[in-house]
Amino acid sequence: MKAYSNQNVLVTGGLGFIGSNLALRLAELGAQVTVIDPCIPGCGGNPANLHGSPFPIHVVPCDIGAPDLPTALLRDADVVFNLAGEVSHMASIQEPERDLAINTVAQLRFLQRLAHHHPGVRVVFAGTRQVYGVPDYLPVDESHPIHPVDFNGVHKYAATMYHHMLSNSGQLDACVLRLTNVYGPHLSLHTPGQGVLAAFLRKLSLGERLEILGDGRQLRDPVYVDDVVDAFLLAGAAATLPSRSYNIGGPQALELRQIAILASELAGVDAPVYREFSAEQKSIDIGSYWADFSRIQRELGWSPATPFAAGIVKSLDHYRIRMAAHA
Amino acid sequence: MKAYSNQNVLVTGGLGFIGSNLALRLAELGAQVTVIDPCIPGCGGNPANLHGSPFPIHVVPCDIGAPDLPTALLRDADVVFNLAGEVSHMASIQEPERDLAINTVAQLRFLQRLAHHHPGVRVVFAGTRQVYGVPDYLPVDESHPIHPVDFNGVHKYAATMYHHMLSNSGQLDACVLRLTNVYGPHLSLHTPGQGVLAAFLRKLSLGERLEILGDGRQLRDPVYVDDVVDAFLLAGAAATLPSRSYNIGGPQALELRQIAILASELAGVDAPVYREFSAEQKSIDIGSYWADFSRIQRELGWSPATPFAAGIVKSLDHYRIRMAAHA
Repeated sequence: MKAYSNQNVLVTGGLGFIGSNLALRLAELGAQVTVIDPCIPGCGGNPANLHGSPFPIHVVPCDIGAPDLPTALLRDADVVFNLAGEVSHMASIQEPERDLAINTVAQLRFLQRLAHHHPGVRVVFAGTRQVYGVPDYLPVDESHPIHPVDFNGVHKYAATMYHHMLSNSGQLDACVLRLTNVYGPHLSLHTPGQGVLAAFLRKLSLGERLEILGDGRQLRDPVYVDDVVDAFLLAGAAATLPSRSYNIGGPQALELRQIAILASELAGVDAPVYREFSAEQKSIDIGSYWADFSRIQRELGWSPATPFAAGIVKSLDHYRIRMAAHA
Repeated sequence: MKAYSNQNVLVTGGLGFIGSNLALRLAELGAQVTVIDPCIPGCGGNPANLHGSPFPIHVVPCDIGAPDLPTALLRDADVVFNLAGEVSHMASIQEPERDLAINTVAQLRFLQRLAHHHPGVRVVFAGTRQVYGVPDYLPVDESHPIHPVDFNGVHKYAATMYHHMLSNSGQLDACVLRLTNVYGPHLSLHTPGQGVLAAFLRKLSLGERLEILGDGRQLRDPVYVDDVVDAFLLAGAAATLPSRSYNIGGPQALELRQIAILASELAGVDAPVYREFSAEQKSIDIGSYWADFSRIQRELGWSPATPFAAGIVKSLDHYRIRMAAHA
């Protein structure tokens, strides 16, 4: 993709899971990459995620909402990939004000300054399927009602509205990708709340059997991180006013038990066991989810390229947790 | 309405426009009314709004988000009418963080404490039609997409999501009334940002001709405050889980120029003049709005009883601004 060669690109949350994968790819494409990430505990940021990059990546260890965030960064950016945030739903229930501060207040401050110093700049925001809550129908398209089941969903949706509202009034040119379960290298396996795929990979890395909550028949459409990076790159290179949200989904809707069984087999770990939800887990379970991603397919030509089994093999290789191979 | 006799009722924002009308009516119905209102400048609160009440109303001059809000108030309330908030769209553009603090952060703190000390309590929240932004279709029903055009709309919608989310997880039993242009006694005429009807009544009170922005063909469905109080009372007396939002609208969709001409005639002031929008005014103009209130009509039996002309005459009498009568 030529679009990014010699472009100044800002990646907020760029030491995190998806952000670091994106930053590395951008650098490889010849972009001048600046990462903003203060590594707030629990948010998945880790400087090691950029270690060994063959291309220089400038890292600014600053909160996006901090008043001392250098203005020049905002003014000089050709594209802003806005991935800073807390992703843990459980943490948002335990500390709603912390989640509000990270996902809404900091975004408000950042976007206001960005719109002021660089009006009309292209922004791609990492949203979440959590804003839909328990789906009214499947697959879920972007017109689905918004009724999140936890504080994280509320606060991420507030930030989503900021992006759209500031864009529709001409202050930014933002779009929002609503992500579903993303997996792959740089997931913070030992940080709680990074999603079911991180929990699965962590257990497999310890050689432990996976635990399936409930009957495991809930549908999920996991998407490999390289495919998500592709979606960010396409969205960053396209102007899409009026501002809109795009669902990002995996190539296939799978039952959680299928996901667990396949991942266990590929890792060489014994078959999963079944366990009941705790009351708290049940309260934020959204049942089945499966994204209709036809809007981004139609408008930006994106679709997920990596089959689930192939993505899991790559992930297991990254984390060196293919037990059979090591046996 | 017998439902409120000897009930402990909490009214947040109860010194404001709608809150004070509601508090007075509740006291008249025999409720033990406690008002929480710190009279944040700009939010329309005014202790004079409760002066001369023939029934006792307890006033607590405290912010709803303050940690020293007495727990007993929350524990003992049979019903909570939650009307605290900033309503000015223009102020939210000028000071977004202030609007966030008042409309979202304070609500989060209040609702968390309420759910903790009084799980499952009935709450009726004053929402706003502003969450819909520029309507995709008319009349607007509750399934209309949420795309607010200003920070106030974003922050009020975040608070709306808190109410629904906490209710659907069993922590509260809340519903939300989405209000359109409400008018009548106790509007804070001299506080900016209280809506077009307040601006009109203020000008008429000064004997000045009304100004219509643009061609004045935008539709509005003003609703008289007594009718809105009826809606709160009905909603407070009904349990409506799963938690839902109800549109509140006036009896008739009128063009703003019709509204201005009629109000001027009834006040005995010369006919309105036409003026262009400023850029800032244009950015938050939502064009025409007209609520479909059939959901609350069907489920709670509410409909607006006061014709616009009758409501305006009552309002003019309250503010003593019927020029012809004084001439």
